[in-house]
Amino acid sequence: MSAPIANHPFDRATHLERTGGGLRGSTSDDYFAFIGPFGGITTATLLRSVFEDLERSGDPLAITVNFCAPVASGSFDIALTLSRANRSTQHWSMVLSQQETGVAATATAIFAVRRSGFSHQPARPPEVPPYETLTALDTSKYSSWLQRYEFRFAEGAPIYRRSEHAEPASALSKFWLRDEPARPIDFLSLAAMSDAFLGRIFHVRGKVLPFGTVSMTTYFHVDAADLARLGDGPILAVADANVFNKSFSDQKGELWSREGQLLATCHQIAYFRDP
Amino acid sequence: MSAPIANHPFDRATHLERTGGGLRGSTSDDYFAFIGPFGGITTATLLRSVFEDLERSGDPLAITVNFCAPVASGSFDIALTLSRANRSTQHWSMVLSQQETGVAATATAIFAVRRSGFSHQPARPPEVPPYETLTALDTSKYSSWLQRYEFRFAEGAPIYRRSEHAEPASALSKFWLRDEPARPIDFLSLAAMSDAFLGRIFHVRGKVLPFGTVSMTTYFHVDAADLARLGDGPILAVADANVFNKSFSDQKGELWSREGQLLATCHQIAYFRDP
Repeated sequence: MSAPIANHPFDRATHLERTGGGLRGSTSDDYFAFIGPFGGITTATLLRSVFEDLERSGDPLAITVNFCAPVASGSFDIALTLSRANRSTQHWSMVLSQQETGVAATATAIFAVRRSGFSHQPARPPEVPPYETLTALDTSKYSSWLQRYEFRFAEGAPIYRRSEHAEPASALSKFWLRDEPARPIDFLSLAAMSDAFLGRIFHVRGKVLPFGTVSMTTYFHVDAADLARLGDGPILAVADANVFNKSFSDQKGELWSREGQLLATCHQIAYFRDP
Repeated sequence: MSAPIANHPFDRATHLERTGGGLRGSTSDDYFAFIGPFGGITTATLLRSVFEDLERSGDPLAITVNFCAPVASGSFDIALTLSRANRSTQHWSMVLSQQETGVAATATAIFAVRRSGFSHQPARPPEVPPYETLTALDTSKYSSWLQRYEFRFAEGAPIYRRSEHAEPASALSKFWLRDEPARPIDFLSLAAMSDAFLGRIFHVRGKVLPFGTVSMTTYFHVDAADLARLGDGPILAVADANVFNKSFSDQKGELWSREGQLLATCHQIAYFRDP
């Protein structure tokens, strides 16, 4: 069953009601992007659908969301299938659809019970100035989803001039990220933060272009006990890209705790049009 | 319809027959790993199922495969759904199941028509000695799938001693990779090569442990025209890991052409048991 709706915009936006055959949610004006809801909020909502299922056990290990079409403003349905489960791992499939337009997103998620054992983190957190010393980006004139986060950029802030960069600029961004207003970090907020990087093509070209995430995968590297120690953040986020070729580009992201623990890694493939 | 079975073991292993409601394949002893088929051959077979569909258009852009359970030796069925399509992009979902045991893998794939336009590759290929100067790994005593590839390691060869490493060793491997016998590179072989990295935990711990890929995602950064220039390889492969924590670890991989073009990036999350 759904927990009572908390009063944070994130929890209102990801709220689901049980229907006869699945779950029903509704888009939120609080998390809108160019032509539909922020992909991160759709991802969090799909992940939440598994938490709403009584058969769910374990913590999220991986989620892949394929953004098939913009979600239209209004209600949507999520159909959920537990494809296979063993003692420690569950494989879920989700389809988000709308009555008039059909499937808007497909997704798979894996939930797992982690066991203690060997632990080793070869990846190192980026060196950035402390959160307290950086200034928050003014997002008041941006899409609503950007106003639901506090961004404190250490590197690669979105500075889009009217004239594009003559040469491709760096795709790398490093910044502190926090829900606005602050909210305790959980798997749902981490899933949403996986998509809270602006399109890398904007940074490289120095301008906003037609852009859309096609598919995104997030791997979680912590369990609920690890997350419980994080409070309400902030999270240290890093995003970069490997390649832009023939109207598609990738993006790789990392989400770190203040203490230097890698919480999640995320990847996406995105469409862009240039020219 | 299926093309005639080519005589390469890879094409025999990924061959599919049309049945009433879907496609049927059969496991191949040529690509076996510890307790089931090599995950890369399962991935290639799932990707091939889309190529077998008359509605398919465009080239593969992304594929995610969730390995729910080992595929048992024998036949399996693939059910294919075109969830949504627009002018340039198709979203496919696949379920691989077996009669007695149920779902063994779920997958989603995106096919897209790429347009020319801005092109930029911030990622740089690793510097390694030329293919011709390196020695092929002797895989004659390894699982059969390893014998279907030629590995020429520049760094991070699998040297597993009886005693484990006292301290965690590097998870990084760089090597030239080629089908054995050689075979023209296509999307199917790239999909399989995405999983042709030995478990990073083996390298870090210096020993073989219980290990299994849980989910893998590959992004393709080229179209069929780009691939046609590659001939039969070799491909330059790079694999590394970010973190090992509480019985799961990630793996990130890159597949490069000899000419320094990034062909594909791949990521997986894997289970390990240690101790």
